[in-house]
Amino acid sequence: MQNFDFYSPVRLLFGKGTEQQIGELLKPRASKVLLHYGSGSIKQSGLYGAVIASLQESGLPFVELGGVKPNPRLSLVHEGIELCKQEKVDLILAVGGGSAIDSAKAIAMGVYYDGDIWSVYEQGGKIDRALPVAVILTIPAAGSESSGDTVITNEKKQLKYGYGSPHLRPLLSIMNPELFFTLPKNQIANGVADMMSHVFERYFTNTMHTDLTDGLCEAVLKTIIKNAPRVLNDPQDYDAWCEIGFSGTVAHNGLVGMGREQDWACHGMEHELSAIYDIAHGAGLAVLTPAWMRYVYKDKLNMFVQFAVKVMGVEGSYRDPEAIVEEGIARLSKFFQKMGLPATLAELGIDSSRLELMAKKATGAEFGTEAPIGGLKKLYWQDVLTIYKSIQTK
Amino acid sequence: MQNFDFYSPVRLLFGKGTEQQIGELLKPRASKVLLHYGSGSIKQSGLYGAVIASLQESGLPFVELGGVKPNPRLSLVHEGIELCKQEKVDLILAVGGGSAIDSAKAIAMGVYYDGDIWSVYEQGGKIDRALPVAVILTIPAAGSESSGDTVITNEKKQLKYGYGSPHLRPLLSIMNPELFFTLPKNQIANGVADMMSHVFERYFTNTMHTDLTDGLCEAVLKTIIKNAPRVLNDPQDYDAWCEIGFSGTVAHNGLVGMGREQDWACHGMEHELSAIYDIAHGAGLAVLTPAWMRYVYKDKLNMFVQFAVKVMGVEGSYRDPEAIVEEGIARLSKFFQKMGLPATLAELGIDSSRLELMAKKATGAEFGTEAPIGGLKKLYWQDVLTIYKSIQTK
Repeated sequence: MQNFDFYSPVRLLFGKGTEQQIGELLKPRASKVLLHYGSGSIKQSGLYGAVIASLQESGLPFVELGGVKPNPRLSLVHEGIELCKQEKVDLILAVGGGSAIDSAKAIAMGVYYDGDIWSVYEQGGKIDRALPVAVILTIPAAGSESSGDTVITNEKKQLKYGYGSPHLRPLLSIMNPELFFTLPKNQIANGVADMMSHVFERYFTNTMHTDLTDGLCEAVLKTIIKNAPRVLNDPQDYDAWCEIGFSGTVAHNGLVGMGREQDWACHGMEHELSAIYDIAHGAGLAVLTPAWMRYVYKDKLNMFVQFAVKVMGVEGSYRDPEAIVEEGIARLSKFFQKMGLPATLAELGIDSSRLELMAKKATGAEFGTEAPIGGLKKLYWQDVLTIYKSIQTK
Repeated sequence: MQNFDFYSPVRLLFGKGTEQQIGELLKPRASKVLLHYGSGSIKQSGLYGAVIASLQESGLPFVELGGVKPNPRLSLVHEGIELCKQEKVDLILAVGGGSAIDSAKAIAMGVYYDGDIWSVYEQGGKIDRALPVAVILTIPAAGSESSGDTVITNEKKQLKYGYGSPHLRPLLSIMNPELFFTLPKNQIANGVADMMSHVFERYFTNTMHTDLTDGLCEAVLKTIIKNAPRVLNDPQDYDAWCEIGFSGTVAHNGLVGMGREQDWACHGMEHELSAIYDIAHGAGLAVLTPAWMRYVYKDKLNMFVQFAVKVMGVEGSYRDPEAIVEEGIARLSKFFQKMGLPATLAELGIDSSRLELMAKKATGAEFGTEAPIGGLKKLYWQDVLTIYKSIQTK
């Protein structure tokens, strides 16, 4: 096991009716709130009204900024930063999924940042403060409600970059699985693929002696695999939603990856797809993950046998480990298919014209600064291109 | 799944050499530290010298209070509170195991408490503040490095009570598994029994739809069962110690019990043993746990079949579930035996003279306020007495 530093101070308030406490919970921590959200779905569902009522009841003033889109845009972040400064906002409440939360985190650090906040995404570096962010989660997927991470798309530059800081962990995240009842099937499926990927990226490792986190990763994955088809079949299955929602948070609060070298190649490859083609992140991950597995498994056979046996429940002769792994990957593909997720770039509307460009952007080769991606197995732009090409069509 | 509120803001710094950072880590948070510890073992091991050196290098003034005993005493807590007030201490650094940490937490809240701090242990109620507590862990066992709980013994009254508050979660816990290399075998074994019990108390539940936390509990238990014999056989096995140490923390930071009704009968029954006989808490739990399982399992058969199959690896005909459970409990007993743990009260030096008194204290019947203990199955004083009697001798 490697040395590690784990710090996850997010308060998670979970269960029925919890969103109604938002006003009283924030009141001691804020004098003016930015209510930040996406489309009109929270207005249709009644959640918007409930949040407003709770804030008003607590006498907590607020301003609003809606309009967050999937793959949240830098331009709205700039708008939010200006609004917070003008209105002297001291806490941001994101109501939505990962996009609203990531946008809120960008605004939260941008308020204190001298210069364009995009530069921390592009160049890295440390921030030393951010406004506190609270969350009411409506889409279990990104895990942003528990992480210190944010991913923003610079729509002008067609770049999608992530940034992380302990200052960006939410103060409080509220998760009432009843709020997931109205999600469309494709968002359910995309969310499931995203949270599974958060575990995969941590699970596939070269680090030895990781019994505890191996077991935790496997428990989270098996819970998702069991319960995801249930919520897809019956979007009002509260018990199954509890498992999915809680799993999505545990998948990305950092715990299950502590002390292990992590991979993150699939996320790197996917960000290039959604930066240019504006596809759903989870759908991109569902296409890429089995292809990545097929490309790397022969060099890391034992890790993939463990995945096939312990996560996908494959039985068979250990004297033919490749067959076990192939069966494990096939089961994962079938699971994604059952969830209605795509399996090819063609299904995502991505043709072959920019595959090389994306492969070179993923590894930095496009900018003359190539560094291979992937902790388990290093991938250069040619490797990424091979993976992209393997999933163009069926 | 039940509604829950999870908040675990303890920073865990894990791995080789981490204790050497203590001075620089505390310097921004403290102006004067109380260094609180137990016996001379940290002086013999060199840890004491390293901590002093790190504090001095950072220019952080400190005062000392050693002498914490297992089942930490109220009298030393009183002494610590006075010392902190006199010396204007603003952070307590506990170097040791659960006893040093629990004693530090009692002092930390006592400094701000108006009256005798024992009254919060005896009568409950909320505290609204406490000094920050930092930890360098030398015994993985109690999980106090991650929890908001403290257990103190009032030696005059022969009472051992626990108390919990979010204000008592440590600010920072440092865990270098190399510091466990010098632990005597009985302390290793007691620690393992204690951390396993922290999972058992959460695992055995009547709550349905707890897939994720079932899996997390099982992962922690299996990790401990695999690695505990390794550290017993080779106390310098760093990798195995990493698993045990990290498991002990995850066992008790609250996560694996979220959304589930919990049990805690074994802890309640054990506290009576150690309050009067001053035995090691883990040893008492090792004696009580299999006996408690045998007493309750027939009413909660499915839960125990799951334990036997998923944790203890029992195979066999599901048409005879009692045989599966009996085998599971037998395997747990054998595991405790292999660890050198006792199986009877006689081995703990406890005779039959005060069994009824302890049973009545455990449930409050002794004080005319009987309330049954145990979330899985309610136990009254007669039940507790039956369990005590079942383990008097072999």
